[in-house]
Amino acid sequence: MITLSSDFGSPYPAAMKGVALQSTDARLVDVAHDFPRQDVRAAAFWLREVLPYFPPAVHLVVVDPDVGTDRAAVVVRAGKHAFVAPDNGVAVPAARRIAEDVEVFELDVDDPASSTFHGRDVFAPAAADVHERGVDTFHQYPGYERTDDYEAVSFPEPELASDEIVGEVLVVDGFGNAVTNVPGRVLDGRFGDEVRVDGEPAPVARSYAHVGAGQRLVTVGSHGNVELAVNRGRGDDAFDVAVGDEVAVSW
Amino acid sequence: MITLSSDFGSPYPAAMKGVALQSTDARLVDVAHDFPRQDVRAAAFWLREVLPYFPPAVHLVVVDPDVGTDRAAVVVRAGKHAFVAPDNGVAVPAARRIAEDVEVFELDVDDPASSTFHGRDVFAPAAADVHERGVDTFHQYPGYERTDDYEAVSFPEPELASDEIVGEVLVVDGFGNAVTNVPGRVLDGRFGDEVRVDGEPAPVARSYAHVGAGQRLVTVGSHGNVELAVNRGRGDDAFDVAVGDEVAVSW
Amino acid sequence: MITLSSDFGSPYPAAMKGVALQSTDARLVDVAHDFPRQDVRAAAFWLREVLPYFPPAVHLVVVDPDVGTDRAAVVVRAGKHAFVAPDNGVAVPAARRIAEDVEVFELDVDDPASSTFHGRDVFAPAAADVHERGVDTFHQYPGYERTDDYEAVSFPEPELASDEIVGEVLVVDGFGNAVTNVPGRVLDGRFGDEVRVDGEPAPVARSYAHVGAGQRLVTVGSHGNVELAVNRGRGDDAFDVAVGDEVAVSW
Repeated sequence: MITLSSDFGSPYPAAMKGVALQSTDARLVDVAHDFPRQDVRAAAFWLREVLPYFPPAVHLVVVDPDVGTDRAAVVVRAGKHAFVAPDNGVAVPAARRIAEDVEVFELDVDDPASSTFHGRDVFAPAAADVHERGVDTFHQYPGYERTDDYEAVSFPEPELASDEIVGEVLVVDGFGNAVTNVPGRVLDGRFGDEVRVDGEPAPVARSYAHVGAGQRLVTVGSHGNVELAVNRGRGDDAFDVAVGDEVAVSW
Repeated sequence: MITLSSDFGSPYPAAMKGVALQSTDARLVDVAHDFPRQDVRAAAFWLREVLPYFPPAVHLVVVDPDVGTDRAAVVVRAGKHAFVAPDNGVAVPAARRIAEDVEVFELDVDDPASSTFHGRDVFAPAAADVHERGVDTFHQYPGYERTDDYEAVSFPEPELASDEIVGEVLVVDGFGNAVTNVPGRVLDGRFGDEVRVDGEPAPVARSYAHVGAGQRLVTVGSHGNVELAVNRGRGDDAFDVAVGDEVAVSW
Repeated sequence: MITLSSDFGSPYPAAMKGVALQSTDARLVDVAHDFPRQDVRAAAFWLREVLPYFPPAVHLVVVDPDVGTDRAAVVVRAGKHAFVAPDNGVAVPAARRIAEDVEVFELDVDDPASSTFHGRDVFAPAAADVHERGVDTFHQYPGYERTDDYEAVSFPEPELASDEIVGEVLVVDGFGNAVTNVPGRVLDGRFGDEVRVDGEPAPVARSYAHVGAGQRLVTVGSHGNVELAVNRGRGDDAFDVAVGDEVAVSW
């Protein structure tokens, strides 16, 4: 199985699929191709939240603002999963969620057909190759060199005090839910109660429909983080927050 | 075969696919993940128009504004098809289009991992389970209880008079075609002629390009209902209608 | 393998998949369903750039503004590939990219269920039929008649002078890269240098990140054509161009 993730929109991902299918019969599964363009951190977050739910697979991941420069191409191995991606750290949080120890191999890339579309010309053929050679054994073939010098995306840590935590909005999903880096456990024991978000009170609820339609709420999202939301509405608008904004939760 | 439908946008559907693939090798087919958010009626309409074209399948359907409340999770069986969905009626019109008699089973849901993403934590594993156990036999296993107490979406009926019919816009598709609940047969014998829509004349045409580019027309859409359209343009704009609006067709 | 391409958005492509799967177990691969609506030339361009990367396949292509009129339905055969499409020329550039000689067969279409959705009622069943009968042999069965009278999309040729070339923006991709019809070879020997675009200087770069974030550049895109771009930004905005606009590149 090969999963595909990118910020390519359409129709570029299809070229990657075509190339991969030239040399593999693997099942192809689209993860997303509408990650915020060239936003390596956002993609890294979502991949960490989604890819660990897959059975063993090769994950083709291309969010690659530095395509055509001297940034390396890598395979990140984590347990029975392998991630084929540019060396900008995008796949590392997902890999580390799957296995404590990850191994990274640099791809020997040989004069690709284009300087602007390595998803098609470098990463798709490499993903098919890793799949065909096997996640356990691909590195025994030429073209893959073990390295300890690789990039990794990291997420900012929230600042915890006894009665306040200051975090950051990491991503906003399509519903308008603003996902923060604040761990959901700070809401333990507060469901049905209120907290303050940037000084304004908001109810803490198990899920969206526990408050009235159009009402604000603070909840624990499916990723385990504190999420600012509105039942049948957009949390980012109601809390007036965007990606990168600081958020103070107090009680 | 398992089809997937939701209002999740991206990348949440991928988590459902990953979970399902943990326990099935079934073919997965995306139907749509961009249904109008939390609009159970719109999704029910589209599913009724699309899913009956599939061969026997398990249909995973998650438009679920009440996720995390006490709404039940159900399997709706219709002939050789099964729909795994929240008990808000979203799958019932499609099921009834496939088979006159449908049977509904309530899922025994046991403390899901999240309160906000039952697509991943409840419905995807259930769809895989129904697929693996078989649409004919899944209910013989624990966890599925037959019920006659279930929700069903219904669509408003148009009001017919001898020279007028008053209907409603049910959905607007991506082309801007406004699909009403008025049965297409009211246009029988009127192709090439005119009707009045909210008092204004509009030609009745077999298809879009039977009128000039940019011209309004009234036609019978692929769902068999009266549709307000513009050749190479948007019918909703030209007729100034939106979902839920009343539309009077007279002749 | 059957690939699917359309301007249908969602959920109409799912109806095509359901219908195809009634009569084939082929792998289905989505190419794109968000081609600019009813823009036959744009779809023809993208298909030419993407489909030749696939292994032998049947390609279902439906961008069909004249659905329901007397335009024919065709199968275009090119090597081991077959394209099932309306006879508006949309598939011909891709076919000719794959094989010098293409053969076209007109489909005998018999009173489809709808006048507005031949993707579902004509082209999807035909694609499944061509797949099941085989790209080499389908035409030996009834319903396919060889014809030399068919439509073909062509792209405008740029005008070359010794120190200027006047081309046209063919498409703008989702990143905002404006893809012209100017062959990339006019930039040979100019990388690291400057050209003038509509009289204004712009650097010629191998790829986007060779200039600073937010800076304009001229590059050769993955299709081999000159592309107007901005590193981490939108080229169409920065160069103030849209599809169909004339672009003069001089040096």
